[in-house]
Amino acid sequence: MTPFEYLEQSEKQRTDELFMFLSFPSVSAQSKHKQDVQECANWLKAHLDQIGFKTTMYPTVGHPIIYAEYFVGVKKPTVLYYGHYDVQPPEPLNLWKTPPFSPDTREGYYYARGSSDDKGQTFAHIKGLESVIKSEGTLPVNVKFLIEGEEEISSANLPEFIRKNTKMLKADVCVVSDTAQFNKTLPAVTFGLRGIASAELFVYGPNRDVHSGTFGGVISNPATVLCELVSQLHDKNRKVTVPGFYKDVKPASKWERQQFKKLPYNEAAYKKAIGVPALEGEKGFTTFERAWVRPTLEINGITSGYQGEGSKTIIPSYASCKITMRLIPDMDPKDICNKLEKYLKKIAPNSVRIELKKYAGAKGVNVPTEGPWLDAAARAIQAGFGKKPVFMKEGGSIPVVSDFKEYLGLDTLLIGFGQIDDNIHSPNERFRVIDFERGCKTAAALPFELAKVKV
Amino acid sequence: MTPFEYLEQSEKQRTDELFMFLSFPSVSAQSKHKQDVQECANWLKAHLDQIGFKTTMYPTVGHPIIYAEYFVGVKKPTVLYYGHYDVQPPEPLNLWKTPPFSPDTREGYYYARGSSDDKGQTFAHIKGLESVIKSEGTLPVNVKFLIEGEEEISSANLPEFIRKNTKMLKADVCVVSDTAQFNKTLPAVTFGLRGIASAELFVYGPNRDVHSGTFGGVISNPATVLCELVSQLHDKNRKVTVPGFYKDVKPASKWERQQFKKLPYNEAAYKKAIGVPALEGEKGFTTFERAWVRPTLEINGITSGYQGEGSKTIIPSYASCKITMRLIPDMDPKDICNKLEKYLKKIAPNSVRIELKKYAGAKGVNVPTEGPWLDAAARAIQAGFGKKPVFMKEGGSIPVVSDFKEYLGLDTLLIGFGQIDDNIHSPNERFRVIDFERGCKTAAALPFELAKVKV
Repeated sequence: MTPFEYLEQSEKQRTDELFMFLSFPSVSAQSKHKQDVQECANWLKAHLDQIGFKTTMYPTVGHPIIYAEYFVGVKKPTVLYYGHYDVQPPEPLNLWKTPPFSPDTREGYYYARGSSDDKGQTFAHIKGLESVIKSEGTLPVNVKFLIEGEEEISSANLPEFIRKNTKMLKADVCVVSDTAQFNKTLPAVTFGLRGIASAELFVYGPNRDVHSGTFGGVISNPATVLCELVSQLHDKNRKVTVPGFYKDVKPASKWERQQFKKLPYNEAAYKKAIGVPALEGEKGFTTFERAWVRPTLEINGITSGYQGEGSKTIIPSYASCKITMRLIPDMDPKDICNKLEKYLKKIAPNSVRIELKKYAGAKGVNVPTEGPWLDAAARAIQAGFGKKPVFMKEGGSIPVVSDFKEYLGLDTLLIGFGQIDDNIHSPNERFRVIDFERGCKTAAALPFELAKVKV
Repeated sequence: MTPFEYLEQSEKQRTDELFMFLSFPSVSAQSKHKQDVQECANWLKAHLDQIGFKTTMYPTVGHPIIYAEYFVGVKKPTVLYYGHYDVQPPEPLNLWKTPPFSPDTREGYYYARGSSDDKGQTFAHIKGLESVIKSEGTLPVNVKFLIEGEEEISSANLPEFIRKNTKMLKADVCVVSDTAQFNKTLPAVTFGLRGIASAELFVYGPNRDVHSGTFGGVISNPATVLCELVSQLHDKNRKVTVPGFYKDVKPASKWERQQFKKLPYNEAAYKKAIGVPALEGEKGFTTFERAWVRPTLEINGITSGYQGEGSKTIIPSYASCKITMRLIPDMDPKDICNKLEKYLKKIAPNSVRIELKKYAGAKGVNVPTEGPWLDAAARAIQAGFGKKPVFMKEGGSIPVVSDFKEYLGLDTLLIGFGQIDDNIHSPNERFRVIDFERGCKTAAALPFELAKVKV
């Protein structure tokens, strides 16, 4: 029996196991789900043990890290697989057709929070490697799994774990499947990710919500001031106005821009997929450039005053907004947050008090666009998807990839099995059944291809 | 026994009854409290019946209106008292020291939602009139009470009720106690109120929350656009920029400005009372002018995207904010909302869809500053508070006062028993025990003074 044959005959059981994995509400951002995150980790550890991995759970001050090993010989290449078992908050819940943690199959998709980002994609590698172990009795390479529970909260405790365990994590190459294919018919290798810097702005006014009739016109309204501050973060060409924001930004290379031009692009379809009347971004750049090689500043949420039914005639005591900035390589998250803070303090009126809370960030990363590892990955993708991959970048961030480079000296193969319309971070997150299956096959083919690389 | 003696010996029972009235969570804006509003109305009706009023409850499509009558003779003046038994939403609940609907007495104050606005003040009139009935066996004037349950939601159904019942509501003068004294040692008669126009702005972007890495920089962010729109509603002199906003705004009269100048004003104390580092408002006007005779535009709340714990890297699908504008007499709420809508549609980018929901409003009103009714009110205040009242205006709105003028041809005596720091519309709303007691005395003296006016 070949690994592919094993995968074909075990599909039902694999889906059941995937659904079990997806049913844990492992929402790392919400403390009410702390125990659910732990239980998800427990299940995953037991599952890896059962397949034949030697698995250890490492507690952190946050959520645990799972490390698993399958050693076959010192002369074989060692591959470090990374994934995360935590998921984004599922809210707003009322927009889900089926509950986020009750996985459902319909119209060729698995629906559940985490189905694509990243439980489903991580599980494809686990199941692909299992198919090799079950059919061949062993693996053609040494495998190490590092699966964390804090990716969606900026991997707060992972960098230190990597730094302290460089010997244990020693490898020849990394594999991460936490990105998307280019589209439903074009698999891809991703050669770069944006970084991220996170902060939260608070504007404080009166010491309590006050009557907007009595005090309206006499004091600064924190909600209005917040809006006025946010409105000063972009100019009319949609460039970020924070002084020094673009200081470390290098233009995209000619080769990069050529790759982007090769990719099919249908603006009407793009707009329709997310239901916007028009695209809009930094002047002078194409859509792919704006999404992949330009930094951004986005508001992720705003809170102020009365948000319930009907009206409440108050001036809110405070207003706050969550801000994330996507960075390109060379931009430093801490530096960018400091520049934002300095600028906001400069432009804020003295009739309010402001505070910028700065959170953990991650640098952007570029990965090699040629070499034997990449060729091996491309062959595995062709085996799994029946098609050669294209080269693209990704606007999102996977903080660990730059840590792998910095602490372990390793390049990462970014092999995404998902789709851009998988609704990751949105209600009704989904993963195409066929993408999961092809992902499992790619994962089964990958160790054989990587074994061919001389180390 | 005189009415004042009756009031003195019945204080304990009066407080118990007030606490009963305050314990109903009669929050008109929240549909979950519909039954509580009804039960509050039932209790109030029964209480008025018991005192000797002939009381009727009129249902509306919203919350019921209570009408009560005490007829003493065709040759006596008829006084129409207005009040409201509904209250503002109590949120945020965590900021209340004692629960909003569990009245508490501490440090000389009654604490409860509605204690000052307006259950406590309305109840002072009921108890004042009761003291006259109990001690004299009758009243010196005909009394009509109109007590509604929708004042905090812009009195949606009251104007039509008044229009349809002009005969029943026929009177010689109105009395409303839903304002404040000037300060703790200066009782006041209020000679004008601002009006109000309410709306809610919605900015719609992608058809779902989308990943801010994948789509950041490529599409308009509704939260950012909302901020940019709000930031364009005031200029640097804090004038409202909506074209035509000031078209019907007349400057304050010399007499008005003279009254304002007579009032004690301590900016340091004013700032300290609400905890703001600096006052801020329309350039060229004093604090009292900004609060009383200039129109404003305030944001009462903003909602967008993820507002929970931690971060969620999304571009929100939509953003919305609640807007109320305070109007001075001659400004029309509908006209102002239309102007706002026109302006917002003009300045909004075509990369989002916007909508302005326009709600019910009310005109501002000026009331006479001299005449026999006002003299009578001033004498009653002097009897109750031991001091002559000053003349001031109020920045808040009592929609019914302009309706009384328009439909019944009646002027209103605005006799406030509250204080500016009663935390109305805020957590820990309160009413000074001594203000309640003096209010009851004023209310007992008032019918005797009004009976002296020839009609």
